[in-house]
Amino acid sequence: MASRIGKNISVSIFGQSHSAGIGCVVEGIPAGKKIDLDELQAFLSRRAPGGMPWSTPRKEADLPEFLGGLVNGVTCGAPLAALIRNTNTKSSDYDELRRVPRPGHADYVANMKFHGAQDVSGGGHFSGRLTAPLCIAGGIAIQLLRDEGVEVGAHIARIAGIADDAFALHGLSSTDVHVAHAKTFPVLNDAQGERMIAAIAEAREAGDSVGGVVECAATGMPVGVGEPMFDGVENAVARMLFGIPAVKGVEFGRGFDVADMRGSENNDGMRIVDGRVVFESNNAGGANGGITTGEPVVVRCAFKPTPSISRAQHSIDMQAGTNEGLSVHGRHDPCVVVRAVPVVEAAVALALYDLLLESRMD
Amino acid sequence: MASRIGKNISVSIFGQSHSAGIGCVVEGIPAGKKIDLDELQAFLSRRAPGGMPWSTPRKEADLPEFLGGLVNGVTCGAPLAALIRNTNTKSSDYDELRRVPRPGHADYVANMKFHGAQDVSGGGHFSGRLTAPLCIAGGIAIQLLRDEGVEVGAHIARIAGIADDAFALHGLSSTDVHVAHAKTFPVLNDAQGERMIAAIAEAREAGDSVGGVVECAATGMPVGVGEPMFDGVENAVARMLFGIPAVKGVEFGRGFDVADMRGSENNDGMRIVDGRVVFESNNAGGANGGITTGEPVVVRCAFKPTPSISRAQHSIDMQAGTNEGLSVHGRHDPCVVVRAVPVVEAAVALALYDLLLESRMD
Amino acid sequence: MASRIGKNISVSIFGQSHSAGIGCVVEGIPAGKKIDLDELQAFLSRRAPGGMPWSTPRKEADLPEFLGGLVNGVTCGAPLAALIRNTNTKSSDYDELRRVPRPGHADYVANMKFHGAQDVSGGGHFSGRLTAPLCIAGGIAIQLLRDEGVEVGAHIARIAGIADDAFALHGLSSTDVHVAHAKTFPVLNDAQGERMIAAIAEAREAGDSVGGVVECAATGMPVGVGEPMFDGVENAVARMLFGIPAVKGVEFGRGFDVADMRGSENNDGMRIVDGRVVFESNNAGGANGGITTGEPVVVRCAFKPTPSISRAQHSIDMQAGTNEGLSVHGRHDPCVVVRAVPVVEAAVALALYDLLLESRMD
Amino acid sequence: MASRIGKNISVSIFGQSHSAGIGCVVEGIPAGKKIDLDELQAFLSRRAPGGMPWSTPRKEADLPEFLGGLVNGVTCGAPLAALIRNTNTKSSDYDELRRVPRPGHADYVANMKFHGAQDVSGGGHFSGRLTAPLCIAGGIAIQLLRDEGVEVGAHIARIAGIADDAFALHGLSSTDVHVAHAKTFPVLNDAQGERMIAAIAEAREAGDSVGGVVECAATGMPVGVGEPMFDGVENAVARMLFGIPAVKGVEFGRGFDVADMRGSENNDGMRIVDGRVVFESNNAGGANGGITTGEPVVVRCAFKPTPSISRAQHSIDMQAGTNEGLSVHGRHDPCVVVRAVPVVEAAVALALYDLLLESRMD
Repeated sequence: MASRIGKNISVSIFGQSHSAGIGCVVEGIPAGKKIDLDELQAFLSRRAPGGMPWSTPRKEADLPEFLGGLVNGVTCGAPLAALIRNTNTKSSDYDELRRVPRPGHADYVANMKFHGAQDVSGGGHFSGRLTAPLCIAGGIAIQLLRDEGVEVGAHIARIAGIADDAFALHGLSSTDVHVAHAKTFPVLNDAQGERMIAAIAEAREAGDSVGGVVECAATGMPVGVGEPMFDGVENAVARMLFGIPAVKGVEFGRGFDVADMRGSENNDGMRIVDGRVVFESNNAGGANGGITTGEPVVVRCAFKPTPSISRAQHSIDMQAGTNEGLSVHGRHDPCVVVRAVPVVEAAVALALYDLLLESRMD
Repeated sequence: MASRIGKNISVSIFGQSHSAGIGCVVEGIPAGKKIDLDELQAFLSRRAPGGMPWSTPRKEADLPEFLGGLVNGVTCGAPLAALIRNTNTKSSDYDELRRVPRPGHADYVANMKFHGAQDVSGGGHFSGRLTAPLCIAGGIAIQLLRDEGVEVGAHIARIAGIADDAFALHGLSSTDVHVAHAKTFPVLNDAQGERMIAAIAEAREAGDSVGGVVECAATGMPVGVGEPMFDGVENAVARMLFGIPAVKGVEFGRGFDVADMRGSENNDGMRIVDGRVVFESNNAGGANGGITTGEPVVVRCAFKPTPSISRAQHSIDMQAGTNEGLSVHGRHDPCVVVRAVPVVEAAVALALYDLLLESRMD
Repeated sequence: MASRIGKNISVSIFGQSHSAGIGCVVEGIPAGKKIDLDELQAFLSRRAPGGMPWSTPRKEADLPEFLGGLVNGVTCGAPLAALIRNTNTKSSDYDELRRVPRPGHADYVANMKFHGAQDVSGGGHFSGRLTAPLCIAGGIAIQLLRDEGVEVGAHIARIAGIADDAFALHGLSSTDVHVAHAKTFPVLNDAQGERMIAAIAEAREAGDSVGGVVECAATGMPVGVGEPMFDGVENAVARMLFGIPAVKGVEFGRGFDVADMRGSENNDGMRIVDGRVVFESNNAGGANGGITTGEPVVVRCAFKPTPSISRAQHSIDMQAGTNEGLSVHGRHDPCVVVRAVPVVEAAVALALYDLLLESRMD
Repeated sequence: MASRIGKNISVSIFGQSHSAGIGCVVEGIPAGKKIDLDELQAFLSRRAPGGMPWSTPRKEADLPEFLGGLVNGVTCGAPLAALIRNTNTKSSDYDELRRVPRPGHADYVANMKFHGAQDVSGGGHFSGRLTAPLCIAGGIAIQLLRDEGVEVGAHIARIAGIADDAFALHGLSSTDVHVAHAKTFPVLNDAQGERMIAAIAEAREAGDSVGGVVECAATGMPVGVGEPMFDGVENAVARMLFGIPAVKGVEFGRGFDVADMRGSENNDGMRIVDGRVVFESNNAGGANGGITTGEPVVVRCAFKPTPSISRAQHSIDMQAGTNEGLSVHGRHDPCVVVRAVPVVEAAVALALYDLLLESRMD
């Protein structure tokens, strides 16, 4: 039980990298919501592979067909079901992988868990390709959140040790969150972006890969959304983000830096300004006790370097019980972080929209 | 819907800091399991306040009464229900807080969410005291995991910028994980521990507080536990850990450091040694694709400095709509990290035991 | 995983017949709701045993203590936790039952399922006594529903082959639903009630027991509550009702009679009267496609005769593997139906209130 | 949140009668299970419309395409996703229904719930056609149960007041459950079946429809499956069965008849025979306290007569606020009971298989 998430918005992801198709079933979207399918397609294109020096040469248009839930582009209350056909598959690339697991991938654990019955082609259900249906669901959540005054956007915060500028925790506007992701290479600081691109290229030439960090923010969340203890903003967003392959860390607001701070520095003071409550800072990243403060929700997640590299690695032959060397050929991104930006937005939007619906019961 | 978590082991936490009692209902523990109640009490004592210079003077024995689920110390298949009475409460300390929210606490957001009906005394359901029932459930999970060959232990990884030694990601033994937490001040490196204690004392004298990091490991998890996508090891552990008040970041294995690594460095190579599969490193922290590799699961979480400080802070009067200064008096830990160590162990154990049960259906 | 139910209102039931106590944790009740505790106590008293010729001589006051979730009788947003102490227990009555299961009880299946570790005293977690915490949760739901204009009430529809009058499916008023349950013996037709009482007495004298049917109705449910397919009114109410020990059948509206009807008889026609939509009948029992029509929700459930009878029965010795005769002594109701009336109301109210909250997300 | 069900086997149903397709996502099936797709297709054909005098003339082959989860007909651990294209749709039949709701259908309540945005064509997501994907999931569950020694089969128990023979509650064999459903008209007593066919024809000619009852049994369930209180056999099966359109009542074992029985009649005595525990009867219908006894699980559910009839009915114009007469034309079954037989088998099998997996955690 693994590929479904959400209480009020239930997202169920299906398909494997080389099965007939991949898709999602999304339940709980209120009826009567107009979905802008062109905008959704543009959102999916940001994730889709193809052409850029930092991504795999595999080209997939990622055109979803809506099997149910939409009537003339408007939600009808039935589950929304979308399908993307898998077209550009080369299963022969992967025959060796049934025996020799790729380090850093799920090949070995999947073989143990599923007793050898797992779909190995292209990583099967573990493929990064499964983030496409997550983006369908999340791209719709982004639109639904906008109707509620919430804007979600992300940028590359770091790649290969090179840092982008950070989102201002405090004072971040709804416009600010959209600056980066509108660019082909979604950073705030383009000069740093150039250095990242160069570092990616350098790793690729070395037959290697690099990791990074994505930062995402949501502005306009009303005060009081999220639940205490286990269904707070951080719980929900983190659980969703760790569903993206390669994520190894998640932090909110000042994140791990709080470990070195004092309470007097970290606490966000409050003032009354023009009759309204305002915070003097947003070190909390938009949530206290799991509940939104009204300040922007700001989260960062760390992506490990793409495990598929052409450099020689130590692996094993699971059937023969012998050592094997492995060089992963085929088509792979030397850095998943760039294409992960919309995926992070999708994940954050889904988690927040679910909580926003939940707050209707307060 | 907030204070319940778990699929196969469902934990429901109830109570407020100053209500009649706090406790938990734990469903799903197999029948016929002998619970060592003395060991459980010792575990709870590690979290309980009282006496140490880094903790609140409020003393609570945290003696749970089992209302159901146990017959002569053996689980009977019915839900396990435990109650800790609240005895040492001083509600008068908190009257002002109904009007003037403490920065860094949930006072303001709770007031907005619950329309002023929240229990303000002692932080109500948001109090760190609610980690006591989590420790009942988790302390039992630790015992149940041990029966399966899994050992869970944690230590203070960092306080106020002072770092403890780290758990060896690779080669960590079941003995290693228990070294630190057996100590009064649970660190691996006692000299660094002394410096931390001094830093805590210094902050306390300044009317301030400090944050830190706890690192937790579980050895002996079999290969193949955890589910792809949203119910993997990281998803489940992170969601649980963010249920502990003050946690702002969670990372696994090399965590955020992966952002600066190359694939060739980060990938964990594999070898056959004496006919068995071994990993050459454990940068993954025990899970790939959400599924255990058989290597130790290693996780770190960041705690913000205790928000309750006696130094003057900016707050507001929510009823009058005016600015207010606030100095939080009463009994508070200048650093929650020390007492959080068993809480982190409890949370990790609960998440892993739930997944271990799930794997019976593979 | 068994003793928890509900999506928006989560009810977790704990305790055994002879454990320290029984109780419930109810999560999801909006904050700021005033609970009338006297009314709740009166409701619980309708279920409590004691004194009447049709019930067990065991007397339990069923006085709940609220451990959390209430501040001065008002919900505070934290889970509501209630405890009833078990006081009048005679465990010695049950020692034989560890070996010799009572026909019609869960003794045998519990022994097989829980490998002999089940709590046998008084039926353990399977005891009808566990309906007391269900009544706490449901009694509160009844009050919350009333705030929304919904009235829930039940009556004995049948005992030992003797039928009470039926609720009018169509035209039932909010007053009508309360007529019967205000009586000591909750029937609509008191003459029939007298005959039922006589039949119960007769069965008791014969060392036997009788079954029956309870009918429950909820008026005032707005149109459009309930979800298609698996979370409709019938699904939710039925799942809850089968949680009451001894229930073997559940039917809505015309129920099993529809099998013998034609569409032209069964369909509920519609008319516009004074500008409002009205149905001409309510054979559907208040729901079509799982969704409320605005007509009263009417449900009936069948209770089997109390399995504990003093007449000799065939049983076995599970340890010796031999045949045994069994006469169940101790304190038992010759007919559970009378005391089940408030339990059915509680169950129906909980299911409907959960759906009512769900409809806020439409 | 409506079209998903199951804890260990999660079934998510999508699509509308006239959308691009209908289908299901089934999560939780263990990896490595061989699915017999020919047998599945034969199972689906029993439900598919077409040709018989008791069913709609609409012909749909109901050929599912597996989008994921199967590799060479073997489950791979990823969610199983199946799609049936909607081909033979005539949306123009239904234009009037946006204004004038069909009595006995969900048209009116859907319009209220979904604010007019519901998909009206063919009943949208409320169509009986949505039982096809339920049969995909359930047909697979039937195969998986057989691997565990469990056989599931159903028959028509009653149509239009004409009763088939009943399954023997006690002594029913795995062969017995398959006798009826192998026939074109699935009854035990063919002479009674002929009378039912005549009654259906008579109703059709009268522009009317008839209801009925389906009885289903599962043999071979081991003792100890099912959970106390809310996740017992009856709770799970009933919740699933009420997901089938037109079901208005569900009963187990002796069902509503228990209301008129005495405990001494109804209790199932036990004996030791050849060293094994045997029951002397099976009035309980295979479960006590929600947990299987090892006897066959026997359940009956009542279906209302098809609401779509060509006879004139009273309805309204929801837009104009006026009274309207309505004769439902188009293609409809005069009796859904015949085609419902495999649907009931599917529902029962899914519920039982989920509980069987759950019992692995005992």
